[in-house]
Amino acid sequence: MSAQKRMKGRVPVAVLGATGAVGQTFIRLLQGHPLFEVTEVAASERSAGKRYRDAMNWHEGGVPDAVGDLTVRTCDPGAVGAKIVFSALDASVAGEVEQAFASAGAIVLSNARNHRMDPDVPLVIPEVNADHLAVIDVQRKNRGWEGAIITNANCASTTAAVALAPLHQAFGAREAVITTMQAVSGAGYPGVASLDILGSVIPYIGGEEEKIEREIAKMLGRLHGGHVVHAPLTISAHANRVPVEHGHTACISVRFEKPVTPEEAKEVLLAWRGQEVCWGLPSAPALPLVLRQEPDRPQARRDVYTGLGMSTVVGRVRSDPLMHLRLVALSHNTVRGAAGGSILNAEVLGRMGRLPGVAEGAW
Amino acid sequence: MSAQKRMKGRVPVAVLGATGAVGQTFIRLLQGHPLFEVTEVAASERSAGKRYRDAMNWHEGGVPDAVGDLTVRTCDPGAVGAKIVFSALDASVAGEVEQAFASAGAIVLSNARNHRMDPDVPLVIPEVNADHLAVIDVQRKNRGWEGAIITNANCASTTAAVALAPLHQAFGAREAVITTMQAVSGAGYPGVASLDILGSVIPYIGGEEEKIEREIAKMLGRLHGGHVVHAPLTISAHANRVPVEHGHTACISVRFEKPVTPEEAKEVLLAWRGQEVCWGLPSAPALPLVLRQEPDRPQARRDVYTGLGMSTVVGRVRSDPLMHLRLVALSHNTVRGAAGGSILNAEVLGRMGRLPGVAEGAW
Amino acid sequence: MSAQKRMKGRVPVAVLGATGAVGQTFIRLLQGHPLFEVTEVAASERSAGKRYRDAMNWHEGGVPDAVGDLTVRTCDPGAVGAKIVFSALDASVAGEVEQAFASAGAIVLSNARNHRMDPDVPLVIPEVNADHLAVIDVQRKNRGWEGAIITNANCASTTAAVALAPLHQAFGAREAVITTMQAVSGAGYPGVASLDILGSVIPYIGGEEEKIEREIAKMLGRLHGGHVVHAPLTISAHANRVPVEHGHTACISVRFEKPVTPEEAKEVLLAWRGQEVCWGLPSAPALPLVLRQEPDRPQARRDVYTGLGMSTVVGRVRSDPLMHLRLVALSHNTVRGAAGGSILNAEVLGRMGRLPGVAEGAW
Amino acid sequence: MSAQKRMKGRVPVAVLGATGAVGQTFIRLLQGHPLFEVTEVAASERSAGKRYRDAMNWHEGGVPDAVGDLTVRTCDPGAVGAKIVFSALDASVAGEVEQAFASAGAIVLSNARNHRMDPDVPLVIPEVNADHLAVIDVQRKNRGWEGAIITNANCASTTAAVALAPLHQAFGAREAVITTMQAVSGAGYPGVASLDILGSVIPYIGGEEEKIEREIAKMLGRLHGGHVVHAPLTISAHANRVPVEHGHTACISVRFEKPVTPEEAKEVLLAWRGQEVCWGLPSAPALPLVLRQEPDRPQARRDVYTGLGMSTVVGRVRSDPLMHLRLVALSHNTVRGAAGGSILNAEVLGRMGRLPGVAEGAW
Repeated sequence: MSAQKRMKGRVPVAVLGATGAVGQTFIRLLQGHPLFEVTEVAASERSAGKRYRDAMNWHEGGVPDAVGDLTVRTCDPGAVGAKIVFSALDASVAGEVEQAFASAGAIVLSNARNHRMDPDVPLVIPEVNADHLAVIDVQRKNRGWEGAIITNANCASTTAAVALAPLHQAFGAREAVITTMQAVSGAGYPGVASLDILGSVIPYIGGEEEKIEREIAKMLGRLHGGHVVHAPLTISAHANRVPVEHGHTACISVRFEKPVTPEEAKEVLLAWRGQEVCWGLPSAPALPLVLRQEPDRPQARRDVYTGLGMSTVVGRVRSDPLMHLRLVALSHNTVRGAAGGSILNAEVLGRMGRLPGVAEGAW
Repeated sequence: MSAQKRMKGRVPVAVLGATGAVGQTFIRLLQGHPLFEVTEVAASERSAGKRYRDAMNWHEGGVPDAVGDLTVRTCDPGAVGAKIVFSALDASVAGEVEQAFASAGAIVLSNARNHRMDPDVPLVIPEVNADHLAVIDVQRKNRGWEGAIITNANCASTTAAVALAPLHQAFGAREAVITTMQAVSGAGYPGVASLDILGSVIPYIGGEEEKIEREIAKMLGRLHGGHVVHAPLTISAHANRVPVEHGHTACISVRFEKPVTPEEAKEVLLAWRGQEVCWGLPSAPALPLVLRQEPDRPQARRDVYTGLGMSTVVGRVRSDPLMHLRLVALSHNTVRGAAGGSILNAEVLGRMGRLPGVAEGAW
Repeated sequence: MSAQKRMKGRVPVAVLGATGAVGQTFIRLLQGHPLFEVTEVAASERSAGKRYRDAMNWHEGGVPDAVGDLTVRTCDPGAVGAKIVFSALDASVAGEVEQAFASAGAIVLSNARNHRMDPDVPLVIPEVNADHLAVIDVQRKNRGWEGAIITNANCASTTAAVALAPLHQAFGAREAVITTMQAVSGAGYPGVASLDILGSVIPYIGGEEEKIEREIAKMLGRLHGGHVVHAPLTISAHANRVPVEHGHTACISVRFEKPVTPEEAKEVLLAWRGQEVCWGLPSAPALPLVLRQEPDRPQARRDVYTGLGMSTVVGRVRSDPLMHLRLVALSHNTVRGAAGGSILNAEVLGRMGRLPGVAEGAW
Repeated sequence: MSAQKRMKGRVPVAVLGATGAVGQTFIRLLQGHPLFEVTEVAASERSAGKRYRDAMNWHEGGVPDAVGDLTVRTCDPGAVGAKIVFSALDASVAGEVEQAFASAGAIVLSNARNHRMDPDVPLVIPEVNADHLAVIDVQRKNRGWEGAIITNANCASTTAAVALAPLHQAFGAREAVITTMQAVSGAGYPGVASLDILGSVIPYIGGEEEKIEREIAKMLGRLHGGHVVHAPLTISAHANRVPVEHGHTACISVRFEKPVTPEEAKEVLLAWRGQEVCWGLPSAPALPLVLRQEPDRPQARRDVYTGLGMSTVVGRVRSDPLMHLRLVALSHNTVRGAAGGSILNAEVLGRMGRLPGVAEGAW
């Protein structure tokens, strides 16, 4: 696609793994984006060379026209020109491909788990820890590349991390039991077989509990000397799959440095706006965390699109007979917990002047 | 129904609240029961006087023939002759009606919450605490009646209590976080609106968390001087409704007096057979607790009918980063957790010689 | 609410039955409407006098601010000043209340079934038969009132009628078998019990089949001398409830005056834009009927929001071994099939100069 | 397994394709069967050589002990000794493998579609057309083999065929529109992706409509000179997948030689017992067709296990504005519509003296 055909001033981006479920969500969320324009899509050898619209089963609504006519490229820095790259790659290939792109100078915004726990790779939900993006400097030095890999968290980690972030900042969370009830869209497509989940619960999602336990401590950590010091928060996670299309629900019991009342907690949650650098960005919701006061909310079907799917909805903040507080959190797993989170990370990087071709403060 | 028409030797019983969801389950489970015969059904004034089969919408399969032709009576000891009475009454009326029947000399096996926490009323899952039935003696003395009220636990309490009982007996459970994912049948009929639950999770069930927190401690308590001393176990409960027809799943993190390994726990769970007085009774499953070793079981749809719905299925016994153990338990909420549990309580009472018309040891 | 607080130029409207499921959809769809402003809400005596936001359980997202603070009125022309009234009333009361409002001079846009088959009441899906609105003149003469009652069709009738309209206009439909699979939201709230529908199909919806059989023939009829002559189309309907939240699917076998090939039918469906008077109105979708060519579409979850829920999606147009054509249609039952359809009817009336306070052609 | 370990007198059988969903259902239904004993299981090369219990994911409950320890063989007459063979093979391989077994002298009871429409292969639901089994004689002569291939119908064809059979026999069905709502278990495992079906309807099942249209006419045909003359019944089928675990529902509009009233139809349906040769066989339900008189039955969840899943449940028999009658039928797709149907076919063959090692009339 020639530059003339691009909307004036939009920054070209590529989507890697564009034919999968998360890839499609990237394409959908980037349609009409005011700052980014998808000019390249890449996927596996099997799809490369086809028109994007012919390369897959598109899951929701119709394929956006402009992108539908793109030719699918291979996931190779030689074949993809954009310097901003969203990665929806599967973990089986993401590790190496993302490194290759970063090494070739691209800013890689990754949804894959591979690099999340690397000490020199930022793991970011920007309202929670946009400041961690500074770790890129260490990464570039360590790895000797001009590009960067920035990761966003696992979808279930995201739900709980946003709910815990304001409380941790205010009161110092030390222990938490987090039980999730996760939507099937989190497993990609075809993902969960209907015979496994219709009218049932699967009390197991491979690797998920470990991610929740590790990633949250990293994201709630603080930046110190260019590195992230993980939060001293021990988590016991139970991950379950439930027959819900979109929206991960997390039940959380949490103990702090010292007792916290539900009223104190609610006050903090109501006041929280997240790190200022996110405010007003295109993908940032008005409220990153919406507190519901009804006894029976949040509910996946009713609340998952709060803030166009970018807000985390918290409810049932109450005292706990064992630890200090109990609460329930919900967020949209493929929007906030995957593609949307990555896009917001890119927007923040742009505002910080850390995206090629975007002047600091231009956004 | 005349005595001649009764199967020889079966003991006549009545079902109160016979037209509701739990009442129907009683009728279904008692169909063809070798020891009990439903000779009377009672319900609200609205239904009284009608033929049973015409008094309600029957939910599963067909109304058993013999019972279908009974005339519905009022829930009044004057109108119901049986001395063994299963109560599926709603909590709004159960309190007084059950007292009236006990006062008139009946053994009342109740599913209602009203008397569960009364110190002189046994709250029993017989494999766990059949010995608590001795509390009846105190009850009779206290209340000056010949009958008795025996309660079974809330359905969600039952699931977790059976899973925790062997571990508590072996290792002394002290703290637990229990998060439930409960089937819609637990809410009766019409119960949960489909618009509330299709593709969603409702993170709230009124009063349920308190029941789980209190009832388990009572059931795991020990009998001392005719009274039950509650177990020193503090519980934090999260109760959720999920789009599952039958089967409550509970995710449990538990801390004991001292650390316990998953292997030690599994050994105890595999060996547990429950109190011997239950063994071989018609409604007692071969194994009250079935341990699954697969990583992703129990699953509601696949495992809920284990032991004809009377076994609790436990899986995912693993260590916990925060407390000592994590595990998942599942049981059938309207069978094990309601009507089936009551019937087994009655069978145990009969074997103990505590049912009118049944000689000790006859069963 | 004073005139000053209204958005300049918007026409005030009232919603009757505003607290129910359809009423809430009206409020949601009218939020930010460019032409109409909800200035009054009315409901049963039970709710009257309360703030709207306190008078009910709001089902999706949050109550729009402006409306949430309105005081609920009674459904009485003396208590409601607006001359344009959307009726989401239950059929048990709609008949008389709507007459009272029309008699008091209001334009009543009704979702209730009561007056749909009255010969002097238009039953309108405007792309299909906006010209039928002329029947209002007969109605006013017959009934001696200044107002008018305009009805929209049953939600399932709507789905099939839009799919059949272009084909009937082109080829003359004579016989059809229509089998519906209808979403639970069509039954209102609490509506269908989850125990009835989870993992199941209910092959019965009271009165629905008769509505489908009658209403479609009326809507596909032609205007003659101020009256509607029903189409000579005999329908056999089967109405089913399925575990779907939103979106009614209809499988249709249809016979025409003479054989029609799938290619001829698709050409007609692709070209159809509906009556021109609807074009460009705020609630009119770009395409009232979207034809999908994939073998397995439309699908409720994927396609129900086509055209923001106002388009009917048709697919699987193929020949029929018995009749002439087979096809599948889907539309959103509470948007296109209820509140959204009513609002579009009002917009068309405004453009026609038939709404008080709106000049012909102003829109 | 040695002969000594077999239950005395049971006939050894093999299951081909034993690791798939239908194969597992065969194993489950044959567990404890009084006449047959599974002594061999066979599957693809991938599974051959493994213990059966280790060769797959078992879907419901636990693997029966005796079968679980069998070594999986290849689907080759040289590797499988049993002369009675149940085939749960996929259509991609069933055609040739079944011929090889028949050629080697085995009686092959097949669930695959490959040979169903062969003129010399019986397609049998025994209550409907056990007499068609006589076609085996022609088959043996044509093909020069000692064995035989006997097929049962597609699961959706089965549901409608049983409902139509008594009516066709009494009144001569000529035209029918059949719209199915089919359970996900009909698609095998993993089968339908949960993201495709949760809260949705898929209005397409590849090849299914053609099967329904052809197979029913064959099964309702009559035997003439050793051949089956298809019934002169033209069918228009619409096949849909719905979020139901087990149970296919069919809505049927049907026209007969001359008008039939609902009362006449109900009388015939109530009286129908199916071909006498089936009566009393182990897998034959007391009633092959159960007529429900309630307005809203059959319902998949409530009625699918009628007759242990072997009865077809029919309801809503009513007149039709277009054709003569409308009705709804339901049957269990993996029991009656697959494995259970095959087993009953084998039982009937045994009673007829057409199974090797079983004397005519012994059963």
